[in-house]
Amino acid sequence: MGIFNLAVLSTTVDRLGTSDSKSVVSVNLFVALLCACIIVGHLLEENRWINESITALAIGICTGVVILLLSKGKSSHLLVFSEDLFFIYLLPPIIFNAGFQVKKKQFFRNFMTITLFGTVGTLISFSIISLGAIYIFNKLDVGTLKMGDFLAIGAIFSATDSVCTLQVLNQDQTPLLYSLVFGEGVVNDATSVVLFNAVQNVDLSNIDAAIIFQLIGNFIYLFLMSTLLGVVAGLLSAFIIKKLYFGRHSTDREIAIMILMAYLSYMLAELSDLSAILTVFFCGIVMSHYTWHNVTESSRVTTKHAFATLSFIAEIFIFLYVGMDALDIEKWRYISDSPGTSVAVSSILLGLILVGRAAFVFPLSFISNLAKKSSSDKIELKQQVTIWWAGLMRGAVSMALAYNQFSSVGITQLRGDAFMITSTITVVLFSTVVFGLLTKPLVLHLLPSPKHLSRMISSDLMTSKSFTVPLLNGQDSEADLDLVAPLRKSLNVPHLNGQDSEADLDLPSPGIPRPTSLRMLLTNSSHSVHHYWRKFDNSFMRPVFGGRGFVPFVPGSPIEQSFHNGSDNYPTSEQTLP
Amino acid sequence: MGIFNLAVLSTTVDRLGTSDSKSVVSVNLFVALLCACIIVGHLLEENRWINESITALAIGICTGVVILLLSKGKSSHLLVFSEDLFFIYLLPPIIFNAGFQVKKKQFFRNFMTITLFGTVGTLISFSIISLGAIYIFNKLDVGTLKMGDFLAIGAIFSATDSVCTLQVLNQDQTPLLYSLVFGEGVVNDATSVVLFNAVQNVDLSNIDAAIIFQLIGNFIYLFLMSTLLGVVAGLLSAFIIKKLYFGRHSTDREIAIMILMAYLSYMLAELSDLSAILTVFFCGIVMSHYTWHNVTESSRVTTKHAFATLSFIAEIFIFLYVGMDALDIEKWRYISDSPGTSVAVSSILLGLILVGRAAFVFPLSFISNLAKKSSSDKIELKQQVTIWWAGLMRGAVSMALAYNQFSSVGITQLRGDAFMITSTITVVLFSTVVFGLLTKPLVLHLLPSPKHLSRMISSDLMTSKSFTVPLLNGQDSEADLDLVAPLRKSLNVPHLNGQDSEADLDLPSPGIPRPTSLRMLLTNSSHSVHHYWRKFDNSFMRPVFGGRGFVPFVPGSPIEQSFHNGSDNYPTSEQTLP
Repeated sequence: MGIFNLAVLSTTVDRLGTSDSKSVVSVNLFVALLCACIIVGHLLEENRWINESITALAIGICTGVVILLLSKGKSSHLLVFSEDLFFIYLLPPIIFNAGFQVKKKQFFRNFMTITLFGTVGTLISFSIISLGAIYIFNKLDVGTLKMGDFLAIGAIFSATDSVCTLQVLNQDQTPLLYSLVFGEGVVNDATSVVLFNAVQNVDLSNIDAAIIFQLIGNFIYLFLMSTLLGVVAGLLSAFIIKKLYFGRHSTDREIAIMILMAYLSYMLAELSDLSAILTVFFCGIVMSHYTWHNVTESSRVTTKHAFATLSFIAEIFIFLYVGMDALDIEKWRYISDSPGTSVAVSSILLGLILVGRAAFVFPLSFISNLAKKSSSDKIELKQQVTIWWAGLMRGAVSMALAYNQFSSVGITQLRGDAFMITSTITVVLFSTVVFGLLTKPLVLHLLPSPKHLSRMISSDLMTSKSFTVPLLNGQDSEADLDLVAPLRKSLNVPHLNGQDSEADLDLPSPGIPRPTSLRMLLTNSSHSVHHYWRKFDNSFMRPVFGGRGFVPFVPGSPIEQSFHNGSDNYPTSEQTLP
Repeated sequence: MGIFNLAVLSTTVDRLGTSDSKSVVSVNLFVALLCACIIVGHLLEENRWINESITALAIGICTGVVILLLSKGKSSHLLVFSEDLFFIYLLPPIIFNAGFQVKKKQFFRNFMTITLFGTVGTLISFSIISLGAIYIFNKLDVGTLKMGDFLAIGAIFSATDSVCTLQVLNQDQTPLLYSLVFGEGVVNDATSVVLFNAVQNVDLSNIDAAIIFQLIGNFIYLFLMSTLLGVVAGLLSAFIIKKLYFGRHSTDREIAIMILMAYLSYMLAELSDLSAILTVFFCGIVMSHYTWHNVTESSRVTTKHAFATLSFIAEIFIFLYVGMDALDIEKWRYISDSPGTSVAVSSILLGLILVGRAAFVFPLSFISNLAKKSSSDKIELKQQVTIWWAGLMRGAVSMALAYNQFSSVGITQLRGDAFMITSTITVVLFSTVVFGLLTKPLVLHLLPSPKHLSRMISSDLMTSKSFTVPLLNGQDSEADLDLVAPLRKSLNVPHLNGQDSEADLDLPSPGIPRPTSLRMLLTNSSHSVHHYWRKFDNSFMRPVFGGRGFVPFVPGSPIEQSFHNGSDNYPTSEQTLP
């Protein structure tokens, strides 16, 4: 089928003005390649080295070679890289699904650490890469790059792509690590895009303290407003679906409203120059917390899987595209006279990425550990290495930002720009393929056997048990008990993981030193925030916006059982009992 | 929110070169309007007159007026009408979903009648409208129209849009009528597009017998090849999913493969200049018969609802767009000097549509009734009137074909072309709004009360019972019994509706005359085809491509129960027992 298309392609590529027929050929080829990626990815599922991203990249590169040969060296790709395509159609489902499927309990429990890694960490990485680039690139012959370009380089190469590592980690076996890597990945995406926009909007001709404060102010404003917009959109959808009770007439309307509202939040954020990624991420979280529980059972199953599938297809599409685009001859022509410099630039960038990431993962882990009271909540050294490694890959966001900064309408003109585009491609390809291939073995080596993992869990459980078993049915606020306790009973789930009850803080387990004042402060604030949030949620939010408490819930129904790993707020027995 | 966007819009519309920001505004506005349509549609669900299409049209027109005012009469729409958008993105999900959700048993039972109406009927309608247009328009001052234009007009106005009527009819209460209206709508869509393409591809300068034969040959070739491609794509997806057992690792891959293969079949048909509508329709039928039963339970729920939702959104999008586009000032300028002629042209076309449809519905119903043995299978006069009425609306397909024939890149240049575009808009708007508003009352008047409807069903059942109850477990071929009987037993469904057993033909019920030889011939051939098909399906197709027989089926599981109206091959107890 692919060959058939390519044969048609080689004849149609020459005809001008037939954009219609050419686009049909492109779409055909892309869809056929997507199918191929899925099938090959499935067949290689058990493989120790390969993952879906690498498969898609490899198939993309092979297709690029074939097209290059068929078009006699003219072009290697079918579509001009379009930021619109990426930012308007492919990224939203990926990020929305991330928010929708995230285990909210884990995410919010580690919220401080995740935010620390995702914002402060990204800022540190950004500074190191920018400063390193300024310092080193001026000594190399890479054409003219302005101050804004260097800062953009910092932002571009701070955007990590942790998909590879997430495919290897198991959400049930290493919940802490998974939520840290996952959460950091999302916040990092948002931070780097926000940083990139902030850098572009600020006048950089003369930097002084005022401008730096302006940058920081800009950053915080974007962060808060984007989050707010996402939360409002999510709550609005929950409110509409709850009030109008769509399920009465048609499940299609429920699903359509959820999809459209999520997309609308993303596009409104784009329109208002906010961080659409953050907006749609928080919209996803709110939708899975409220809206999802207001719809009919079949809508729940459908949205859960439909969003995951959309995200899955979009991810493969991106890697396939990056693979195809890597061989685009135009870009490589500019730097063909100095291949040594190109290799040097890419190597320096890779080095800066390694250093920049190490410079924040280990110190911030140390700070985060100070705030944790139980040893199971602390980030061990091996886990720190895994977190460091997980953020070394660079992916589609870096590509898209690089195209935005260094090319106009997909065409690269200046020498410096060409260098940066090709270096980005090299870094993305190298990190995805080489680091990606090493990820599975490395993670299995660092977190070796399922035995080790299960030991970690059971120790975790024993700790939390010794904390909470005596406290069952005791320390929760009344509002909590009224709404949650009967539900929990019907679910047959004991109230473990009850770190949010205040009494926790006064019961240090044997062998763990009493909290220091700094730790006390951080833990205390985080826990009381969570406590008040639950109170607020139960007494005000749920009556208005719906949620678990207001839907007839049949324990043991096949759908709920098979999807308990998803958006549950309460731990199920499998997760918490040995 | 809409107003906010429009305010931004009015400032951005003037800026040139900012296609990016303009497209973001357009997408925002469109998504917000889609949400509005869904909510308003939901609120008006119980209304006697309004349906979702009319809501979307009305909202589209209102938005068009606002944009027209804001842009000071420059333009009324945000996007230029793009055939690509329509034929590549909006139509495929609608038609695929039609095939996917069709009740195959009813569809294939009435296959002869549906094909008769959809192909022969459309050809009759096409001839009458073309000849009428040639005869009448030459007398009016409507600019120069060529022979090809007149034939195109015939094809354009033969494409019906039966969505309005289907929203009113109940698939469970009037299964025969529903399957006829629905099936004819799909086959008609395909026929008119195939006709349109055939007319465009044939040299029309001098018509003789050879060219007419060429047209017919072209038509049959397109029909058969398109069907074949769809069937092959569907079977391929079933085979891949069954062989590789995707569900083992991930439900996302199953769903993704189904979506992508369906879309690939559509795009391959487009590429090969076949009728993509027919292809994707039969792909949907095959997928629901084989592939759907090979995937996991949650994938089944997800695909069912996701496809329905996509189709739902696409339909609203089209009507919204047609509403917005109706006020486009450019087109009306050409005909503003002769409004009388414009009204005349539209009225004549509407008249031709009414006559052209009457000219085949009643005669073909008579022929079809000759072939039916039981009175319940015959199409009553009131039902004939309903079928006639259901096909009077014209919709998006007519619009898209008219744009294809009478404008280049969305701009209408010649006087004759402008007349035809505006007339198409007028006919589409008038028929959708006026006929659409009358549909609900008319159908309720013709098929008055649920009592009457339930009487029809029970009489239907009694007839088929008196035929088949004595034949239970007797007349089926051995292959049938081996595979189906235990399944049927486990389903607790007696073997009613067994018209495929040969003995049926020899048992006329009292009061119905013995079959005439013509009836005998038609009934016989149709029934033996079905019989041999089931034999072939059970002994060869199912072992290779999967299907109901090979998936562990839990009777009474909530998903199966709540979706029994969908793609079941076997009547469930609710449908067949009083």
